[in-house]
Amino acid sequence: MADKRFFESAGPFSLGELARLSGARLLRPQDEGLLCRDVAPLELAGPGELSFVAGPKYAPALARSRAGAVVVAPELAGAAPEGMALLIDGEPYRAFARIAGAFYPQRPVAARRAASASIDPSAEVPPDCAIAEGVVIERGARIGRRSSIEANSVVGPGVEIGEDCRIGANVTLSHAILGARVTIHPGARIGQAGFGFAPDPAMPLKLPQLGRVVIGDDVEIGANTTIDRGAGADTVIGSGSMIDNLVQIGHNVVLGRCCVLCGQVGISGSTRLGDFVMIGGKGGLADHISVGTGARIAAASGVMRDVPPGATVAGTPAQPIAQFMRQTAILQRLAKKKERP
Amino acid sequence: MADKRFFESAGPFSLGELARLSGARLLRPQDEGLLCRDVAPLELAGPGELSFVAGPKYAPALARSRAGAVVVAPELAGAAPEGMALLIDGEPYRAFARIAGAFYPQRPVAARRAASASIDPSAEVPPDCAIAEGVVIERGARIGRRSSIEANSVVGPGVEIGEDCRIGANVTLSHAILGARVTIHPGARIGQAGFGFAPDPAMPLKLPQLGRVVIGDDVEIGANTTIDRGAGADTVIGSGSMIDNLVQIGHNVVLGRCCVLCGQVGISGSTRLGDFVMIGGKGGLADHISVGTGARIAAASGVMRDVPPGATVAGTPAQPIAQFMRQTAILQRLAKKKERP
Amino acid sequence: MADKRFFESAGPFSLGELARLSGARLLRPQDEGLLCRDVAPLELAGPGELSFVAGPKYAPALARSRAGAVVVAPELAGAAPEGMALLIDGEPYRAFARIAGAFYPQRPVAARRAASASIDPSAEVPPDCAIAEGVVIERGARIGRRSSIEANSVVGPGVEIGEDCRIGANVTLSHAILGARVTIHPGARIGQAGFGFAPDPAMPLKLPQLGRVVIGDDVEIGANTTIDRGAGADTVIGSGSMIDNLVQIGHNVVLGRCCVLCGQVGISGSTRLGDFVMIGGKGGLADHISVGTGARIAAASGVMRDVPPGATVAGTPAQPIAQFMRQTAILQRLAKKKERP
Repeated sequence: MADKRFFESAGPFSLGELARLSGARLLRPQDEGLLCRDVAPLELAGPGELSFVAGPKYAPALARSRAGAVVVAPELAGAAPEGMALLIDGEPYRAFARIAGAFYPQRPVAARRAASASIDPSAEVPPDCAIAEGVVIERGARIGRRSSIEANSVVGPGVEIGEDCRIGANVTLSHAILGARVTIHPGARIGQAGFGFAPDPAMPLKLPQLGRVVIGDDVEIGANTTIDRGAGADTVIGSGSMIDNLVQIGHNVVLGRCCVLCGQVGISGSTRLGDFVMIGGKGGLADHISVGTGARIAAASGVMRDVPPGATVAGTPAQPIAQFMRQTAILQRLAKKKERP
Repeated sequence: MADKRFFESAGPFSLGELARLSGARLLRPQDEGLLCRDVAPLELAGPGELSFVAGPKYAPALARSRAGAVVVAPELAGAAPEGMALLIDGEPYRAFARIAGAFYPQRPVAARRAASASIDPSAEVPPDCAIAEGVVIERGARIGRRSSIEANSVVGPGVEIGEDCRIGANVTLSHAILGARVTIHPGARIGQAGFGFAPDPAMPLKLPQLGRVVIGDDVEIGANTTIDRGAGADTVIGSGSMIDNLVQIGHNVVLGRCCVLCGQVGISGSTRLGDFVMIGGKGGLADHISVGTGARIAAASGVMRDVPPGATVAGTPAQPIAQFMRQTAILQRLAKKKERP
Repeated sequence: MADKRFFESAGPFSLGELARLSGARLLRPQDEGLLCRDVAPLELAGPGELSFVAGPKYAPALARSRAGAVVVAPELAGAAPEGMALLIDGEPYRAFARIAGAFYPQRPVAARRAASASIDPSAEVPPDCAIAEGVVIERGARIGRRSSIEANSVVGPGVEIGEDCRIGANVTLSHAILGARVTIHPGARIGQAGFGFAPDPAMPLKLPQLGRVVIGDDVEIGANTTIDRGAGADTVIGSGSMIDNLVQIGHNVVLGRCCVLCGQVGISGSTRLGDFVMIGGKGGLADHISVGTGARIAAASGVMRDVPPGATVAGTPAQPIAQFMRQTAILQRLAKKKERP
């Protein structure tokens, strides 16, 4: 299924192997030796290809599917067409992620150093790194083993990048310390000076921005996302956090572990998030507020105050989601009433 | 009018020629031979320059204008000062666009290959392309005839670019197939992995992103816009679609023909738009929804559900625009009532 | 405090010197000779370090602080621990900004011209400029004295950059005239064609974009921000304006002096702002409207109409902030009422 120009499959795998590596249970043991040559979306998969069923709403698609095998939750297995091989798992998306990862593992970095890369003699770049064309690595920067930096990216003075990091093309890093296995997508801007100045009747007076950006392990940062360095203390991105494209993170912001920020989220300066906070697309947070561990912020919300741990909020100004939905409903009812003569 | 340092005029043209190429009707045939040496905005245009009148609200500006000639709708022609030459057209903006395009046609690409460009020997780059400084074209990529790629852009392995495309500076393309006459403005990011992972108590588990970005003909993509490749199926941008700056398009999104997305729009994963859908600035769409052909989404709306063909919606959550406006009005009335003692 | 890998201190300074250069008053004249070796945030500062107290809400942090000295408003001085040296100022943030600027002044540009930079022979680049690796400066461009351009940025044909400008890495400039002391952060896109086309049943008809971007003195433009050039007239950014990251400014927009646009703001085409306008994060403005001098637009607002000088507006559609807050309160009350049995 996947276009061979762009993706190289490590398959085929037998269903037995796929069951073992994903933790899913093969419904019919006799299918164990069947070979699966690729993964594909449910509507597009054919014989010899494996797909997954994301939830009950896809039961009709499952019934129509021509996939050779699917990963499916136990309660939906009955909807599968006869003859389809079934891998049963309570969390089919996760099991499928493991299987897809086996077919298309991240390729190991092929060590190289493009002739047109410019690496300051004082920078440390281990020989097993891949440094592409036009990359600039400035004085005192240190790159971890097996990390790759794609074309035309710029690593500023003193920046530290951990092991096994993947820095995309046209990225800019400065005043930053990155952990291991960090992925940065193309065009992200990390470590530039934040938006700090004292208003003044004559001309705004800029405040030197003296902190850094400190990024934990296993973080992913989306394309064209911007993360400013701290003003005094650091801007911190906790390990395992996933940040989508075009997100703005202001100076001194602190994210806990495994936070998830969807596209175009904006977090103003000095705001702090606990662990496992999720923010839907375009969510915005005011400066100097706190969002507790496990809180969820609905897409397009504007959060003006602290959010307690575990709460779900929505709207602008954001409030508990049940309250937001009640307000929406009441307003709709009032408008309908008005409409009648 | 246009600054000669940046723009080169193909003029002058006679009003007769301009009438012919724009389809507008010259009100006074005796003006046919008058020479027009440039185009300019209504307030700035002088004798020998041509402008246009966008609508009735500009009638006073028309009355004051010193332009030598204007394109104007028939019903506004009476507001023009005496002596001004008038080209009459029911859609003056469109007629003016044709005239301005005659004065300032897109210049043909001047074939070249900068010495500092790095082109993999397996890539196909016809000799009539313009490849600027620092461009990187990776293995197996194929560029169409007469296409240009500006400085420091990166074309990933296997990418296909059609004929007569214009790729701006500092652009990143990967896992993408582009049609003909596609314009991509500086800093756009096309084809990076989408935001796909299975949540997990330990650490999010990433799903390999195995689709592509498939872009039709005559598409325009704005500066610093991001379009993620599909997760399994492709992300698709229909022919003739116009996408403004800083727009985010998630994996598996499908746009029909001639969609218009204004600045900072965000479309979440797997959402599908029909043809001729228009989304105002900062509009946001949830994932896995459908927007019908010809639907219009007001600026700053947050669309959480399907939108039927031809509908106009506004607000967050988005609803039919008449309903949104009624709600806004009712709320304003309630607040005013409360204000009184 | 500041990480020596990234920042170089010009200190130490005596408190006497710091009082003089900041305009703050040293509470106890006998502290004048005390040496201050760095600045630091209130919670992190130790002996020998100077901090500041942003407002009454930080009084407890002040009481706990181990800083050697702080800048503090007169009314909060009493909350300081005994023995701490106090600089008294009615605007402590501003005084601190001056002190921090003394410790960490912007370093003078070190003249250089990287071998891999590509400078057209017709471009004017004074010898005291710093032109980094991979920079491309096209024909007829003119750079002012002592300006620096960081790696892989692209300066298009005819662009003018004033004196003492700092252009970050991976920036793209075209069709633009910049004043003096302009700072542009990484990845900003200035001067590309705006979003201009006439809708058409067949295919949108593009309008040539014939204006420029004209930027005054002392302007700051954030990372990955996009500013389109004018369609006919120019896009204008007034002197002293501060623009944060990921902001979108459409064609023909005019900003007065010292405007402040926070992250992810969007301003649609032809809208005009007076002087000293402030727009909170994610604020959006419709096209062809006017915002008066000194107006303030709350974060996440959607402004659809003109805003008078000095007004403060909030909400979508934006309205006077008192009215917006009343509406929010009424809606909350209605929802609570409904909740009861």
